[in-house]
Amino acid sequence: MTPSVLETLVLEGISKIVLLVLDGVGDLPHPEHDWKTPLEAARTPHLDSLAPRAALGRILPVGPGITPGSGPGHLALFGYDPVETTVGRGVLEALGAGLELKPGDVAARANFCTVDGNGVVTDRRAGRIPTEACERLVDLLKKKAAKIEDVEVVLQAGKGHRFVAVFRGKGLGGQVSDADPHKEGKPIPSAHPIVTSQAAEKTARVVNAFVKRAAEVLKDEHPANAALVRGLSERPTFAGYGERFKLKAAAIAAYPMYRGVAQLAGMDVLAVGESPSDAFVAAHKHWNDYDFFFIHVKGTDMAGEDGNFAAKVNTIEDVDRALPELLGLDPDVLCVTGDHSTPVPVRGHSWHPVPALVVGRWCGADRADRFHEKTARAGSLGTLLSKDLMAVLLANASRLDKYGA
Amino acid sequence: MTPSVLETLVLEGISKIVLLVLDGVGDLPHPEHDWKTPLEAARTPHLDSLAPRAALGRILPVGPGITPGSGPGHLALFGYDPVETTVGRGVLEALGAGLELKPGDVAARANFCTVDGNGVVTDRRAGRIPTEACERLVDLLKKKAAKIEDVEVVLQAGKGHRFVAVFRGKGLGGQVSDADPHKEGKPIPSAHPIVTSQAAEKTARVVNAFVKRAAEVLKDEHPANAALVRGLSERPTFAGYGERFKLKAAAIAAYPMYRGVAQLAGMDVLAVGESPSDAFVAAHKHWNDYDFFFIHVKGTDMAGEDGNFAAKVNTIEDVDRALPELLGLDPDVLCVTGDHSTPVPVRGHSWHPVPALVVGRWCGADRADRFHEKTARAGSLGTLLSKDLMAVLLANASRLDKYGA
Repeated sequence: MTPSVLETLVLEGISKIVLLVLDGVGDLPHPEHDWKTPLEAARTPHLDSLAPRAALGRILPVGPGITPGSGPGHLALFGYDPVETTVGRGVLEALGAGLELKPGDVAARANFCTVDGNGVVTDRRAGRIPTEACERLVDLLKKKAAKIEDVEVVLQAGKGHRFVAVFRGKGLGGQVSDADPHKEGKPIPSAHPIVTSQAAEKTARVVNAFVKRAAEVLKDEHPANAALVRGLSERPTFAGYGERFKLKAAAIAAYPMYRGVAQLAGMDVLAVGESPSDAFVAAHKHWNDYDFFFIHVKGTDMAGEDGNFAAKVNTIEDVDRALPELLGLDPDVLCVTGDHSTPVPVRGHSWHPVPALVVGRWCGADRADRFHEKTARAGSLGTLLSKDLMAVLLANASRLDKYGA
Repeated sequence: MTPSVLETLVLEGISKIVLLVLDGVGDLPHPEHDWKTPLEAARTPHLDSLAPRAALGRILPVGPGITPGSGPGHLALFGYDPVETTVGRGVLEALGAGLELKPGDVAARANFCTVDGNGVVTDRRAGRIPTEACERLVDLLKKKAAKIEDVEVVLQAGKGHRFVAVFRGKGLGGQVSDADPHKEGKPIPSAHPIVTSQAAEKTARVVNAFVKRAAEVLKDEHPANAALVRGLSERPTFAGYGERFKLKAAAIAAYPMYRGVAQLAGMDVLAVGESPSDAFVAAHKHWNDYDFFFIHVKGTDMAGEDGNFAAKVNTIEDVDRALPELLGLDPDVLCVTGDHSTPVPVRGHSWHPVPALVVGRWCGADRADRFHEKTARAGSLGTLLSKDLMAVLLANASRLDKYGA
């Protein structure tokens, strides 16, 4: 189903949809835990009470075997084709750093490096300077390199040698090559336009001027005496929830990356604390203002990345304990799933299909005893691409018209 | 997932992947065997020992309801879209006949026919002459029609009235129509270029000269006094395992067709005997030379084509008995599957999904008691298109990078 066909079928409605994303929730059976996955091992009485009357299934974020980053994982959940709808590295980095991007902004990943007297890069990571040093140097650049021509340069320190640069001004474009040799022993190359356009030309000129200014400002510093800029990309503009799905959508997410991607998808981003309970309370508070709530829980992914089975179980149990607050709002459609799997043994994102639960008036009732990878595998939703999940949620919310007569 | 996205994610690695293809292994439940399939009925202690710690699933060679030939079935297993990546009939026939094709070769299916005094085809199959007669006549053509202009004509007798012709020379192309009326009662039409190109023109001219020469050489023979040429096609050149997947790949297959298709996919074709044990010994011998081994077992398909349940069970048991040799090599990822189903009651290739088993460090453990059509149906891999299987194998071998940040 191409989005364009889906979008022609979208109806106005008063039903409310909640998409509860437990980041990286999917996992593998653990021999040392009686072959249970964290979802299976967790005590989840409230999810258990939903399972028998829910439709279960699995979602594939991008396709078989493909491990997604957080950007593509969430774009797919939001109903975008994650291959056709790309968001540049610089933009994702800026969103992840909590910078708000305006239409027309060009964002880039940047880092401090060491150059020798001839301008040759001798260390692309400036000896991995500590974060505090990075923050001091970024403050310096904010004072001395915040404006190039009529372009504002918005800077934000990251971890170690990393920072983010956002170029904000008229007529900029992201089709510009890196000012980064990508290896030691070479000078910093000039950024140059990848396409023939005034926007790319101006951006390349501004980036090169910024790199030059940074080297001047930093010339007496050591080892971080220059800066590299790469992954230049424009804030993409694509149709969002309002336009595509006739949904007034809110994002309840504590971490910048997810807030940022939700914003790209046209959601209002609400203030929230870090716990699942905080998130559900925020949904309660804004319940009458929105049709769609994306609620993001980060702990499951972090536990997976840490290889911490118990922490993943605990986060799932935290969510379950807080769930009555959300269920009390009586959403017309509730979906619980993840943006990808982050199995504890893998200690990172993976390609494994992600369990999904959909409950609503018309969902059918799989009569599963619980919600986890194994019941999901046998569920009535089957295995879908994540990008098709939104259609299922809209359908369950009576927000899709019949296709054809 | 388009292949081009997959290919951007491929990493170098040292892990080894084995793809063990039991040709036509998929089958249907047989009422007269307690509703078991051959995989279920076979005694397979070694496959049984893999099953609990493997991920099971099913693959669809082309799509629902589509029965593939051996060419598309294997191209899909090798990660090519079998609809986009076509190999001409002449090329498949030549590969199946054991002819090695060089870049630029144009191959064709050919057969002897009977023409009357006016050159009208009265029998397109020359009374289905016996294979020995075909061999004698092909030898005659080899002596008298082996060179047309500067083009070498490589000939190989087939079964009955069939033979293969490969045109080898400078500036040939496969875009040429058949020198075959496709029905009796008409003269042999001239081959003509389908596109405007010098290569197609030269090839048509050479084919027509060959058909004319053949008729002269055969004029006193009966009933095979002329030849038809059809399915003209160029040896395709597409990116192979090395280029696409950064894998040094070997094919261990006794039958020409599979050796040929593997060669098109950029694999080295190793010498091997016909038994599963021979194949696994060959893998052992070359284990250090390759990253990827395609091992082909033909017996399952032949038994299916013959409608012989017991023979199919026997072949599966032969494979299982020999399996320790392969398992002893400790491949990082082992996949056991088929290129298509050849159910005993169908006595031919079919469209039914093919069971697949994948075992490796990150595969998960479906805890299935055995590997067969029914456990595969409930497995965690779900049902994939065959062309997506390579992505799953690469992922399991830690040879795919994350998609997006």
